[in-house]
Amino acid sequence: MKDAIAFRRARKQDVDAIVKMLADDVLGKERERYTNPLPESYLQAFQAIDADLNNELVLACRESEVIGVMQITFTPYLTHQGSWRATIEGVRTSSSVRGQGAGTQMIEWAVERAKERGCSLVQLTTDKQRKDALRFYEKLGFIPTHEGMKMKL
Amino acid sequence: MKDAIAFRRARKQDVDAIVKMLADDVLGKERERYTNPLPESYLQAFQAIDADLNNELVLACRESEVIGVMQITFTPYLTHQGSWRATIEGVRTSSSVRGQGAGTQMIEWAVERAKERGCSLVQLTTDKQRKDALRFYEKLGFIPTHEGMKMKL
Repeated sequence: MKDAIAFRRARKQDVDAIVKMLADDVLGKERERYTNPLPESYLQAFQAIDADLNNELVLACRESEVIGVMQITFTPYLTHQGSWRATIEGVRTSSSVRGQGAGTQMIEWAVERAKERGCSLVQLTTDKQRKDALRFYEKLGFIPTHEGMKMKL
Repeated sequence: MKDAIAFRRARKQDVDAIVKMLADDVLGKERERYTNPLPESYLQAFQAIDADLNNELVLACRESEVIGVMQITFTPYLTHQGSWRATIEGVRTSSSVRGQGAGTQMIEWAVERAKERGCSLVQLTTDKQRKDALRFYEKLGFIPTHEGMKMKL
């Protein structure tokens, strides 16, 4: 039996381990910069996330090792008769644990957290280049009803 | 020449006009409830949006009439070397002005606002049932690189 995964909020001293995971990814390696010291922009972003009650940066840990990260944003909307939504973004698992079900546990945890926060919907977008991710999320109950459109500024 | 459109933040007394617009829509009429008095849930959602510095509910007005609404959410992320994104959601125009370019002006305004707030990306999802909306956003420079996945709770 595999060791249990524990979830907790990220702290400032976790940012290094998080960026390492973000950069260790087929798309992430092109756009992240894992240097020593880390670019200051990562720490500034962490502080902005940490200061916002409607954003939670969550770590999955096995024993004391960080093996996964995701960000959950809670947003109030007027649509659907006034409701809250949870948006999951930046989901990554350490390459050392991929294929062992950690991702499934992370998303299931995020869905429970969204229920606790009173959300009526959980949403995410996934890059069409990530074919496995689409199947992964469909298996967990997400439905690709929408086009996810982006514009870089 | 058409009257200019002015943009401003929504106030509590605008919620009635906003919900009327949300309900006057092929998908919205199924899921919204425009009654007198309005369901309390709309006012609660408005208060939550209004209290959140990272959410802006924006109205497009022609003279004093509200002709469009949209919500812009600003979110800090660790990804892309620590960055802010703007998410546009709940875009509606009054049926009396559709096809007159108000939607284009609204999205252009939102993109400028995202730049002012230092965002590196603007994103939105659009229901695949709204065929015209996909073309509309593509014409404005959005690229449908992602699947937009939803799970109702």
